[in-house]
Amino acid sequence: MAKRSTKRVISSYRLTHDGALAILQLGVARAVKIGKPVTITVVDGSGVQLASLRMDGAYVHSVESAHTKAYSAASVGRVTGATPDLGALKIGLATYGKLSLGIKGGVPIIVEGHIIGGIGVGSASGEEDEDIAMAGLKAINGAKAKF
Amino acid sequence: MAKRSTKRVISSYRLTHDGALAILQLGVARAVKIGKPVTITVVDGSGVQLASLRMDGAYVHSVESAHTKAYSAASVGRVTGATPDLGALKIGLATYGKLSLGIKGGVPIIVEGHIIGGIGVGSASGEEDEDIAMAGLKAINGAKAKF
Amino acid sequence: MAKRSTKRVISSYRLTHDGALAILQLGVARAVKIGKPVTITVVDGSGVQLASLRMDGAYVHSVESAHTKAYSAASVGRVTGATPDLGALKIGLATYGKLSLGIKGGVPIIVEGHIIGGIGVGSASGEEDEDIAMAGLKAINGAKAKF
Amino acid sequence: MAKRSTKRVISSYRLTHDGALAILQLGVARAVKIGKPVTITVVDGSGVQLASLRMDGAYVHSVESAHTKAYSAASVGRVTGATPDLGALKIGLATYGKLSLGIKGGVPIIVEGHIIGGIGVGSASGEEDEDIAMAGLKAINGAKAKF
Repeated sequence: MAKRSTKRVISSYRLTHDGALAILQLGVARAVKIGKPVTITVVDGSGVQLASLRMDGAYVHSVESAHTKAYSAASVGRVTGATPDLGALKIGLATYGKLSLGIKGGVPIIVEGHIIGGIGVGSASGEEDEDIAMAGLKAINGAKAKF
Repeated sequence: MAKRSTKRVISSYRLTHDGALAILQLGVARAVKIGKPVTITVVDGSGVQLASLRMDGAYVHSVESAHTKAYSAASVGRVTGATPDLGALKIGLATYGKLSLGIKGGVPIIVEGHIIGGIGVGSASGEEDEDIAMAGLKAINGAKAKF
Repeated sequence: MAKRSTKRVISSYRLTHDGALAILQLGVARAVKIGKPVTITVVDGSGVQLASLRMDGAYVHSVESAHTKAYSAASVGRVTGATPDLGALKIGLATYGKLSLGIKGGVPIIVEGHIIGGIGVGSASGEEDEDIAMAGLKAINGAKAKF
Repeated sequence: MAKRSTKRVISSYRLTHDGALAILQLGVARAVKIGKPVTITVVDGSGVQLASLRMDGAYVHSVESAHTKAYSAASVGRVTGATPDLGALKIGLATYGKLSLGIKGGVPIIVEGHIIGGIGVGSASGEEDEDIAMAGLKAINGAKAKF
């Protein structure tokens, strides 16, 4: 792909399904290791689902929370859970509930400064969810989260 | 039914409509006894409605709250209302409002360790709602809630 | 697990995440082989998502169509696409768009007569979508679809 | 209750939960007799759910279709399924999918000219669904449907 110099279309990166599946697999391996069943969801840079897996014993509702965390991390380009509670609730309501910044478990996928997706994990504690998402992130060489 | 050993399909239980109807009836009897009209909703293990009854005088909104409580109890496998307020609000938002852990009245239906459904009651006080849901649970032999 | 004789709780099966992931993998392998990128979604017996993968080049909207096809197959216990067009449109509307019987690509997962889930595939032709879903079904020993 | 003569508030009727439960029971009895598991839903005159039961073997999606049929019958005061197809689809879309006039199975509950609710049945054929709803209607003395 030629690098384009026009300001109207710029070069970027996209996460592939191989990448998304690898994230799921590393995440599941970590979840199994710590004995915490979770749902892991991976979204693209626009917050649209690329991949998801709900493990046996994960809460049914984690299908929803893993998605909102992944969406949130991809949207703001930072891990979730650092926003003060009241602000998180207000922006959550202001986005019809799409944005969930108040709880840990959402991790952005950032490659060379480009936010190319997000990983969301739900059903364990916030710390465990984030730990599992970070384990999944390792599937993408050079990808970084932002705290 | 043969017990299956493959890890890809596992044995489980399902709540029948006879069971769901029996839960409604015991719940209504209890609600009548204490003079508190409520909505009682029963969901399956994935949180989808099996049965519901809105009693005369119950709040219109209890159609919604009885459902979210039943869904929540089926999802987490514990009675609702024990989660600290702020945490309940945040996870509620993170699930598009589907999860309602902050108020009492949701009771899981657990048979031999399998979560096969949930009962949600709304319109009375939280304690009364839970009391009515627990009365309904008695319709299922050997079923237990978890506090 | 003891077989229960009461009519209020009956024995059944559940699809595990190992099973759901194996379905994704066989489905992706088939899609790669025929050169058609798709989204593959697996739901449980109540239509709630267990696993999903959107392949590179699959339509964005296939996140939605793969889900409605999987939900539909799990709900009616038959492959989708056999319902006459007008009927499919009407029942689709009557279910807030949740039911999508009018196009191929949804396949139920039936084990010993129990509908334990559904597979939905979207983004290729209806015939190819169904072919990929059927390839995925082979991951579950003894599972059958119904035409 | 005194009859009020002012035009600003008028006398009406309301369906009780005893009535709604009796409708469910007659409907279920009929469904069992003809061997067709269904979901039966009863709504009040404003289309809000009073009672519902999803029978074993009924389609998961019938939770939705039984509701839209009951809502539709209560809204228009006629049985569903008589509206020409294209008109039914257009008004269905125009109501965000809430109105489902294109398929049988919705029956209004009319007492002395007052529409006090609706019964919706889904999962069998349209004719069977309507038959079961009409069987349920008999629980309400003097109630009539309108074709």
